Amino acid sequence: MSPEECIDFFFKPESIALIGASPNPEKLSHTILRSLREMNFKGKIYPVNPGYGEIEGLKCYSSLGEIEDRIDIAIFAVPAKAVLEILNGPVSNIKGAIVVSSGFRETGPGGKKMEDELKALLIEKGIRAMGPNCLGIYDTVSNVDTFFIEREKIERPVRDGVSILTQSGSFAAMIMDELANEGAGVARVVSYGNKVDVDESDCLEFLARDEATKAVALYIESVTNGRKFLEAASECVKKKPVVALKVGKREPGARAASSHTGAISGMYEAYEAAFRKTGIIEVASYEELKDACKVLNRYSPVKGKRVLIITDGGGIGISIADACEEAGLRVPEISETAVRKLREKLPAFASVRNPVDLTGSVRDEHYVAALQETPAEEYDLAIVSLIWGPPLLTESVVEKIKDFADSFGKPVLITSSGGKFSREMASAFTKTGMPIFFSPDSAVRAAAVLCGGNGRQK
Amino acid sequence: MSPEECIDFFFKPESIALIGASPNPEKLSHTILRSLREMNFKGKIYPVNPGYGEIEGLKCYSSLGEIEDRIDIAIFAVPAKAVLEILNGPVSNIKGAIVVSSGFRETGPGGKKMEDELKALLIEKGIRAMGPNCLGIYDTVSNVDTFFIEREKIERPVRDGVSILTQSGSFAAMIMDELANEGAGVARVVSYGNKVDVDESDCLEFLARDEATKAVALYIESVTNGRKFLEAASECVKKKPVVALKVGKREPGARAASSHTGAISGMYEAYEAAFRKTGIIEVASYEELKDACKVLNRYSPVKGKRVLIITDGGGIGISIADACEEAGLRVPEISETAVRKLREKLPAFASVRNPVDLTGSVRDEHYVAALQETPAEEYDLAIVSLIWGPPLLTESVVEKIKDFADSFGKPVLITSSGGKFSREMASAFTKTGMPIFFSPDSAVRAAAVLCGGNGRQK
Repeated sequence: MSPEECIDFFFKPESIALIGASPNPEKLSHTILRSLREMNFKGKIYPVNPGYGEIEGLKCYSSLGEIEDRIDIAIFAVPAKAVLEILNGPVSNIKGAIVVSSGFRETGPGGKKMEDELKALLIEKGIRAMGPNCLGIYDTVSNVDTFFIEREKIERPVRDGVSILTQSGSFAAMIMDELANEGAGVARVVSYGNKVDVDESDCLEFLARDEATKAVALYIESVTNGRKFLEAASECVKKKPVVALKVGKREPGARAASSHTGAISGMYEAYEAAFRKTGIIEVASYEELKDACKVLNRYSPVKGKRVLIITDGGGIGISIADACEEAGLRVPEISETAVRKLREKLPAFASVRNPVDLTGSVRDEHYVAALQETPAEEYDLAIVSLIWGPPLLTESVVEKIKDFADSFGKPVLITSSGGKFSREMASAFTKTGMPIFFSPDSAVRAAAVLCGGNGRQK
Repeated sequence: MSPEECIDFFFKPESIALIGASPNPEKLSHTILRSLREMNFKGKIYPVNPGYGEIEGLKCYSSLGEIEDRIDIAIFAVPAKAVLEILNGPVSNIKGAIVVSSGFRETGPGGKKMEDELKALLIEKGIRAMGPNCLGIYDTVSNVDTFFIEREKIERPVRDGVSILTQSGSFAAMIMDELANEGAGVARVVSYGNKVDVDESDCLEFLARDEATKAVALYIESVTNGRKFLEAASECVKKKPVVALKVGKREPGARAASSHTGAISGMYEAYEAAFRKTGIIEVASYEELKDACKVLNRYSPVKGKRVLIITDGGGIGISIADACEEAGLRVPEISETAVRKLREKLPAFASVRNPVDLTGSVRDEHYVAALQETPAEEYDLAIVSLIWGPPLLTESVVEKIKDFADSFGKPVLITSSGGKFSREMASAFTKTGMPIFFSPDSAVRAAAVLCGGNGRQK
């Protein structure tokens, strides 16, 4: 890769210029400035706006040319026309741009013309760019946040291992907000919108090399360059798991996608083939992608498809077993030897088979006994379902299960359904860093991801 | 139906005896007593326990025979053996029993023998019974609550139109807790466990006639009597929508179900055929059943499968369209005439097609304009997706959409994804009585239910 192709500097910027900076809290540029400060961004921040001398205690520059520093990222938070005007001026100190502005290709022929002009200008000036019509970067590693939606509206997730790539800004905002709300984290999120320059393949190339990224989640409306994508995806999959949600699969969705970021979604079958060929794990829905993010923060895919289910609610155990089979996973019988061992360790009321049903008489230690006494070679991952009604079940079960999971080589997925009380009990798991799933179906979706994808699709 | 076959009195009891009543707050009978009082149950409550003279200000009886009143429901909250002992004594004043106690058929051959004995005793004494191994009844109409799990752990839903029938107590508790947490209500919930007497068919017969029940949701591990079920279900479907989740479909789940309530799940294909024949709408997962409950509280199934999607997040609109197509629904193009009308009413930034994308520049009135200007004859239901990032979108949009939905003949399903802020904004919808779905996928599952079930299964 030639240096000018490398987009790494977007993820470790030392200086950021904020074009269109404003002291007005209603301006989106203001939200970005506040975010950068709340993220405790360590580099330099240069507000740019001819109308102000100072903003929030920072010197404000009247133009980019006035800044006597190399700018890694110039955030364009100005109307589409102004973006072009500024790029026509002195911008030789700019390395990269994030154009959050909309009003380009997604608006029709006039916007398309402006986007072509933008593209030509970027090439002429040697500037790499994300966007336009995007939210840009939310990065827990470099402490950058160009998402212009207030943190009161869209929560920011804590730092963790999964990085998310998306064309759709609304999708990025939704999944970030929900992950944060469920106590899950991310490494880096990139919303690249219309992809006038930087696209999914550029980002995949970087994320493949990125040590902070343990797994990648892709939301794809369309891929710009098929061959480049196949190469980048194949390389990335060699290093870490990659999951993808392709939207705009069928006619109506495809139609909308074409308008949305001005892209043509292309035949879904081609994408399916590409995912299979590169080893990308395909997910079928938004919820599956979210579940994938949560589980891949902690666990890597496994080789088999055998699931051990442990529950204190018989009906829920059965639902989970059913959902597993529907998703192409297996819920094998426990061996006779293991059944004998389990019977010794578990009380008589427990149902010793798969699913193991500890019933409403469960005590904390029974969960661990069931996990410990079932031989590890009999399953590839465990789904542990807790409902918090049983009177003798306490919060201490969390630490006990966590200790087992920490020393165990296989994924242990927790599901805890229910309302306020359950959420509170479940939050203890979140604090330990274990991913938690708020419905049986959600845990099974996550399990299917670890087992290489939902079997129904194959 | 002969009077002795009629189980209506379970749903309008005038007197309840609580066998095993205790002043000890850790006893499940205590939870039941507290619940009956919190529900403001209007009938008489007779605690029964030879060990006490008074419990919580109520006279406590040493035996059932001592009560000089006809007892509509005798709740047995004592060990399995004691249930049999008591039934062997004087019980001529008992009309119905709810045996919440476990320790019967679900525990193996010994328990099976006890359950046979229980059955014989009930027939001999002419007592109709629910259970054993169940939670019994949660009823927002008659203000009965025999669920023995504390309200701090499992929230109780408010009154609404859907009634839920389930073998599994843990399932009942989970779905009640989650519905309550999501602001949704129920009419009556029956958890009948091992079904020594009253089964799904008896309950369906009652619910068909029950004016408080607008729709029925069934969780089925197994059906006791196939012919009786077909008749009861057919009759009920003529009166109101019935949805069903069959669990224990495949081998492992079926195995567990057989242990769980001692039932044999039978061939899934037979259930599928029965659902089709009777007109029951089958759902595939726990989440779908929950979504069905929420949507059927307010809306009835529709004739067609055409969905109008309105969103302020392009990516989310596309995901919804995809999910609709996956579920066998249709997302038709809006007619040329309608497009022209919409273009007049909506700002230039809006994408006027289906999905309608109002973008991040949306204002409250645009949602209503999009709903109003698309001719009703072009779609069968609408999914309105809100993300709350857009700066000009306010809480007032809720009242505006509600007013439209109230005067409109077709279902309008709201989806609002996200974390704390979104949940708060969304709660305004819940207050208006409109069902709200917390993910795009969830709204599509509900839409599929209204359109007669998920097309994938057919």
